[in-house]
Amino acid sequence: MPTYTPPLRDMQFVLHEMLQVADVFKALPRHADVDADTINAVLEEAGKFAAEVVTPLNAVGDREGCTLDKATHEVRTPTGFKAAYGQFVAGGWGALSCDPEYGGQGLPIVLNQCLYEMLNSASQAWTMYPGLSHGAYECLHAHGTDEQKQLYLPKLTSGEWSGTMCLTEPHCGTDLGLLRTKAEPQADGSYRLTGQKIFISAGEHDLAANIVHLVLARLPDAPPGSKGISLFVVPKFMPQADGALGARNGIFCSGLEHKMGIHGNATCQMVLEGAHGTLVGQPNQGLQAMFVMMNAARLGVGMQSLGLTEVAYQNAVAYAKDRLQMRALSGPKAPDKPADPIIVHPDVRRMLLTARAYAEGGRALAMYSALLLDQAHACEDEGERHEAAELLALLTPIVKAFLTDNGWTATSECLGVYGGHGYIAEWGMEQFVRDARINMIYEGTNTIQALDLLGRKVLGDNGKRMKIFGAKVRELIEQEGVNESLQEFVNPLADLGDKVVKLTTELGFKAFQNRDEVGAAAVDYLRVCGHLVFAYLFVLQARIAVRKQGEDAFYRAKLATIRFYFAKLLPETAMLIRRARSGAQPLMAMDEALF
Amino acid sequence: MPTYTPPLRDMQFVLHEMLQVADVFKALPRHADVDADTINAVLEEAGKFAAEVVTPLNAVGDREGCTLDKATHEVRTPTGFKAAYGQFVAGGWGALSCDPEYGGQGLPIVLNQCLYEMLNSASQAWTMYPGLSHGAYECLHAHGTDEQKQLYLPKLTSGEWSGTMCLTEPHCGTDLGLLRTKAEPQADGSYRLTGQKIFISAGEHDLAANIVHLVLARLPDAPPGSKGISLFVVPKFMPQADGALGARNGIFCSGLEHKMGIHGNATCQMVLEGAHGTLVGQPNQGLQAMFVMMNAARLGVGMQSLGLTEVAYQNAVAYAKDRLQMRALSGPKAPDKPADPIIVHPDVRRMLLTARAYAEGGRALAMYSALLLDQAHACEDEGERHEAAELLALLTPIVKAFLTDNGWTATSECLGVYGGHGYIAEWGMEQFVRDARINMIYEGTNTIQALDLLGRKVLGDNGKRMKIFGAKVRELIEQEGVNESLQEFVNPLADLGDKVVKLTTELGFKAFQNRDEVGAAAVDYLRVCGHLVFAYLFVLQARIAVRKQGEDAFYRAKLATIRFYFAKLLPETAMLIRRARSGAQPLMAMDEALF
Repeated sequence: MPTYTPPLRDMQFVLHEMLQVADVFKALPRHADVDADTINAVLEEAGKFAAEVVTPLNAVGDREGCTLDKATHEVRTPTGFKAAYGQFVAGGWGALSCDPEYGGQGLPIVLNQCLYEMLNSASQAWTMYPGLSHGAYECLHAHGTDEQKQLYLPKLTSGEWSGTMCLTEPHCGTDLGLLRTKAEPQADGSYRLTGQKIFISAGEHDLAANIVHLVLARLPDAPPGSKGISLFVVPKFMPQADGALGARNGIFCSGLEHKMGIHGNATCQMVLEGAHGTLVGQPNQGLQAMFVMMNAARLGVGMQSLGLTEVAYQNAVAYAKDRLQMRALSGPKAPDKPADPIIVHPDVRRMLLTARAYAEGGRALAMYSALLLDQAHACEDEGERHEAAELLALLTPIVKAFLTDNGWTATSECLGVYGGHGYIAEWGMEQFVRDARINMIYEGTNTIQALDLLGRKVLGDNGKRMKIFGAKVRELIEQEGVNESLQEFVNPLADLGDKVVKLTTELGFKAFQNRDEVGAAAVDYLRVCGHLVFAYLFVLQARIAVRKQGEDAFYRAKLATIRFYFAKLLPETAMLIRRARSGAQPLMAMDEALF
Repeated sequence: MPTYTPPLRDMQFVLHEMLQVADVFKALPRHADVDADTINAVLEEAGKFAAEVVTPLNAVGDREGCTLDKATHEVRTPTGFKAAYGQFVAGGWGALSCDPEYGGQGLPIVLNQCLYEMLNSASQAWTMYPGLSHGAYECLHAHGTDEQKQLYLPKLTSGEWSGTMCLTEPHCGTDLGLLRTKAEPQADGSYRLTGQKIFISAGEHDLAANIVHLVLARLPDAPPGSKGISLFVVPKFMPQADGALGARNGIFCSGLEHKMGIHGNATCQMVLEGAHGTLVGQPNQGLQAMFVMMNAARLGVGMQSLGLTEVAYQNAVAYAKDRLQMRALSGPKAPDKPADPIIVHPDVRRMLLTARAYAEGGRALAMYSALLLDQAHACEDEGERHEAAELLALLTPIVKAFLTDNGWTATSECLGVYGGHGYIAEWGMEQFVRDARINMIYEGTNTIQALDLLGRKVLGDNGKRMKIFGAKVRELIEQEGVNESLQEFVNPLADLGDKVVKLTTELGFKAFQNRDEVGAAAVDYLRVCGHLVFAYLFVLQARIAVRKQGEDAFYRAKLATIRFYFAKLLPETAMLIRRARSGAQPLMAMDEALF
């Protein structure tokens, strides 16, 4: 069974040395008091909770799955899930970065992201229960009426109640414009919702006393398509003004999906039978309101794959040091043993370092993005808030798609380190791979992320957001362009930066003539941008590590990982750019009938 | 639930048009009568058997798995497996390419490979039962004594008995030199075997009356390591001279593995408790004898992933034509419907065409290799037999590793076409992905294949085998170098050929100084060679398709697929060559303790 050690040292490196968050926080009034000691104390306790309470649940969750009692519509989660959730609530973990006005601790979001990386390493399936609540919290916090906030936010903050997002229907996932669930206005200003939803994660379970569903539906007079969708809050039990639970509402789980992975999380078919709901935000503006939740969720999905990458790496390293098989091609390394540990073999190291580099790069990107979210919320200056928000908008699809594609690769490579044992359930590696696959799909498939990046975030504003990031890259290159010890990293960063500028311009021209060129290039383009961002963040890390490599082996390991990244992973861009440039024709030429 | 239509047209294209097998067979005395009509009739019947009898078993096999009765050591296979196996035996399918002396039909191996592609599309887990028998048949046919052949080959040919290969032990998989199972000589010339084996596919089951285990073990006086391993045949029931079953032998299934996929195939822990066996081949030469079986098995594993790629593609295409979601970026394509079928979207086409190109390239390579095997067995001229065998030795690790890596990519892309539904068991796509993962591991991990290719097959003979293939590539380039309509394919083939020559030379020099350079470059090198072979085979196909594109849409689809391959998949070589050239240092620099 896999074990897990919270990567506190690397988190602290990213937070304190790379991002220097305490300095950043000093400029944010609401976080000005958050210092390094506070951060480290929170990280340590969070790590303990993840490692000790949640990690043991992962295998049992996969084995047992969830069960639905068709008579009562109640779902039972795997053994131990409920008790651990109780400890989560009791420990105040759900409230970590929530608004103090509703009982939250008001800590920065970047800390919450660290918590979630660790929880996802421990068990993605379990972590989805509190994770989705947090999205519902953010959506209601941004768009709810005062009454909705008073009714729901304190309980969502504490975790006594959990939340969901109900978007998908059998005939529509990506294309929410097709959705059919209806909301009929009632005389008292509320609505009655009727319809069917599928793929509702944590749609029903036994962890929390109430479940707060955020449901997309159509008003009777709604225009067709995505401009006619409204958002409603539909609780499982009607809340009373005093916080007590009222009548059972007409929203029920009618079935559970059997899935490739995340068995411990209930993926529910939900039926709404005249369920009572109240409107969130403006009529027909539901998608915009839901996007607050979606953007948070997209960062959250990136954290899921980051967590899986880290835990798969840790276990594969332990196995590679322990398992004896063959001698090193360059001569025996453990002559006293019957064979060498497999970590001596170059290709085993390639597998391990792939996961390690993706974990370290992913962590840097995830925290960088989370800090932007803190800045977008809490900077005093509107211009700074805006710039942070714009940069985050650019990076969000990259966090979601790049980290989850990398997570799929990394977990599979780590499985490979185990040879045949990797394929056997008891070692736990194959579960990480199965769990990782959903992350490329939900909260907008990675293709949708790529279209969002290239079509909307880059070409859609004529490259303005891209220029914000480009200026940061250029600034770094100018700062370190004469630093000889960083040339091996700065030069390829500069080279890739130039190539991305050229590629973006070229795609912009092509897209002007044929919109299919966007769809044809988007996925490759996103991965190129992912590597550009990783290269930038690795240079930021390398300049610290070069300076301190004499002090501590941590920095030497960091440098070795970064060198591996530049030698073995960054060259993917040579393929991606060629593919992106080869255009739509090779994809669109074949007649549909010939497939 | 997935459906399956045997790709007879593409098989016939490869056999009759690309390989012109009937002409090749005319030069092989034992196959001189095998004409196109015979081939097509066999393919058609084989396709019916696969599609109608085996396809329905795949989902049930995954759901039910196998069960072990610990008291009797008997294994029950999933519902329907046994009946289908009975039909397989009754239809004579196991005997297709077996020696007529033992009741076989004596048809070419390339036909048997087509049968196995289709069976694997239908159900890899089921197909492993007869597939492993065939390996045991080949091993005994090549290395058995006359008595062993008379005892075992007729029943293995008919399929009344099945076979296994028992290599792996808990502490050794790749490194068979470490194995511990003991064989004690008996007064009657037989042996008693004692030990433990793991990961024995089809080690115990209820399909056949007897199971013939080929077991690697050590004689008491054996030298240590891989030079002290002998091969034994150890039947479940002792066979009598008249073919009847005698006493139960001391080889038992003691446990079944719970695995990521291929649930329908029993992966057994086997205990040998003084099991009676007889020696196959020479003492201490067991690995060489086993390699006959291993090489056949490696081609067989390639067929498994080819089969999965094809069936995943077929189903993803059907879904992509049926599923309505979003409008094409270039404007509505099905304005009468609420949305366009997703096959209009460029990235959905990229996913589909990736699988299609890998299926068509993989089929061409697999059949090309199988025909070499026929030639290596049946050419009259020794020089021709030798050349075919040498080329096949070069291609075998490529078939195994390239086709299985591609199968993993392709099945995952096809899952992606389904969006969230791809993650749900009832659609069957996630099973293809889970099943595909083992193919990269067993019968020698893909890393081992890569080391075999670069270390042994290429550098080990100073490039002699590579030159045989290089001459074929050059010949094709010379033939078609002036054919304008093929320039788009011939030029990149020639370019890649040059690059492979340079890369091989460079790696040879580096390996001379540091053997770790072989391990560092091997995996990337194998994929570069895989693309070179695919590019060569696609040019062979393109020159037919260009000529006939006016006749039949099949050829236009073939050309479109080949153009996609050259535009979108071949550019991977740009990455691979860079990575291969970046050497061992970025992998070996990090101290083991720092991982």
